[in-house]
Amino acid sequence: MKLQDLGEREIISRIRKDFSESPRDVIIGIGDDAAVIKHGKKNFIITKDLLFEDTHFITAFHPPYFLGRKSLNVNLSDVAAMGGVPKYALVGLGLPLGMESDWLKKYFSGFKAAAKEAGVSLIGGDVSGSKKISISVTVIGEGKKIIKREGAQEGHFLFVSGSLGDARQGLILLKKGYRLRDDGKADPFIKAFLDPIPQIALGKDLSRLHLASAMIDVSDGLSTDLYNLCQESGGGAEIFLGKLPLSPGIRHIQRQPYRLALHGGEDYQLLFTVPPQNQKSLLRLQKKYKITLIGKIIKKKEIFLISRQGKRNPLKIKGYQHFMKS
Amino acid sequence: MKLQDLGEREIISRIRKDFSESPRDVIIGIGDDAAVIKHGKKNFIITKDLLFEDTHFITAFHPPYFLGRKSLNVNLSDVAAMGGVPKYALVGLGLPLGMESDWLKKYFSGFKAAAKEAGVSLIGGDVSGSKKISISVTVIGEGKKIIKREGAQEGHFLFVSGSLGDARQGLILLKKGYRLRDDGKADPFIKAFLDPIPQIALGKDLSRLHLASAMIDVSDGLSTDLYNLCQESGGGAEIFLGKLPLSPGIRHIQRQPYRLALHGGEDYQLLFTVPPQNQKSLLRLQKKYKITLIGKIIKKKEIFLISRQGKRNPLKIKGYQHFMKS
Repeated sequence: MKLQDLGEREIISRIRKDFSESPRDVIIGIGDDAAVIKHGKKNFIITKDLLFEDTHFITAFHPPYFLGRKSLNVNLSDVAAMGGVPKYALVGLGLPLGMESDWLKKYFSGFKAAAKEAGVSLIGGDVSGSKKISISVTVIGEGKKIIKREGAQEGHFLFVSGSLGDARQGLILLKKGYRLRDDGKADPFIKAFLDPIPQIALGKDLSRLHLASAMIDVSDGLSTDLYNLCQESGGGAEIFLGKLPLSPGIRHIQRQPYRLALHGGEDYQLLFTVPPQNQKSLLRLQKKYKITLIGKIIKKKEIFLISRQGKRNPLKIKGYQHFMKS
Repeated sequence: MKLQDLGEREIISRIRKDFSESPRDVIIGIGDDAAVIKHGKKNFIITKDLLFEDTHFITAFHPPYFLGRKSLNVNLSDVAAMGGVPKYALVGLGLPLGMESDWLKKYFSGFKAAAKEAGVSLIGGDVSGSKKISISVTVIGEGKKIIKREGAQEGHFLFVSGSLGDARQGLILLKKGYRLRDDGKADPFIKAFLDPIPQIALGKDLSRLHLASAMIDVSDGLSTDLYNLCQESGGGAEIFLGKLPLSPGIRHIQRQPYRLALHGGEDYQLLFTVPPQNQKSLLRLQKKYKITLIGKIIKKKEIFLISRQGKRNPLKIKGYQHFMKS
């Protein structure tokens, strides 16, 4: 059997089964946004994301400064999704020999800016030649109360930060030939795709205030990531189409904005569940962050989409698996 | 300027300069075998190595089982070179979609075997599609007394573990068409290349007994790695050609075994310096490990090779930079 017939989820599930034995200090192993190791009173959160040229980014679309930022920020988003605070980063770069050194300078200039914003130190890495650009960033963070993908229970409310679908809309515009600063209307979407901002402060507050029962970042699309959260928690969900947060401009530019919001990917917002007794405290956080109630957790292991007319349909999972895209 | 004109060393040196500010708990940042973060009484050692198809390995030469082992073991070697004990691993894989899933099964079977031997747990990672195989492993270890690349002083003795040049000889044989188990004479060399063994126990003993003043693993070739150790320590070295440890069979198979021992690369042995007062204790370790005295540290910032006739010549650094090889 070929890997493409297996798919990313099945591959990871097989690896996970194969490496299911873990020592006691490994609180979270394979299968969450990041791994967690307990040490004394602290938890170390470790995450690792790959970005490959022509699979995750296209150099013609992605200026190196923003790629530097994004390659760090997608990892910071994984730490945020555990309620942790990122502290250290390592970067492994495979680079074509014929590349201009200016590209690398700009890449690191972006990486450095994102690191500074998040209070993260680059402590090591590896550089090597390769045919196409290959980026592997590892981030280590710390956290007290870790928020896992599992923990959501029937009746818990489902919230998401920011707006959904913008990044995918940005990718569509880039594919159409638009570039950053070509068009004021296109810019916020292109920016959302090229330069997503990890929701570190929100993740930290949710952990500190013990408000969320489960959390994941929306990197592969709401439908896929919600499915993953439900899988780990052992339940299902209902989401209300009319409640999905859309940015103001997307309706003008896109005929099917909800499709992008549901399946778009690359938003790097936080999707989390809140037990009813915490909802009041959570609403107070809405003064500080854009957070939207989009649905709730149900017992049945399925995801339903409730239309504006109240019609309840099973939601198909169409968020992208990077593995299927290259 | 193109990256190939800069070279790996200059690229890393520029990144290092750019990220020179580190918080106090970062004991070692960019520039050693691994990064070290202090936490309480423990030090966490973090390393990250990349292995790219056709740069670091060729699938036709490298059975997936051994590649799984090697991709973990080269990282464990970096932890060993700090005197640490490896504990956790994360693996990032870029894989061609058309690959047989059996390849991945064998890869992880090798990875798991190497992890078990070293007491390491796989705790996370990432899988994605890519044109060629791309492997990025991160290993986290622990250590009390960290042995850095810096710390070697004039008069300290220079030791190396195991034998040198075997792995490169193995690569030569593979390129000639030999494969493992084709030929009993070729097998030990091919094995040395395909399946190097990290010197974890030796590194740990050197740290525990406070015997070594500086250490590095010989991954890029003795000449390059000795140069790196001297650069960090701020001195030079003299090495005796006749003392370089060669495996018994290499003289029969290779006309210039010393060239391979000096510049071969991929040996994953430990190169370390020992202050004169520790030499007696070190000799006791020779009952347990193969360790050879090959030279000493000098004040002058140059590396000299002393021939069997006592002639002293500057040593050219010819060990390979992966960056120049792709």
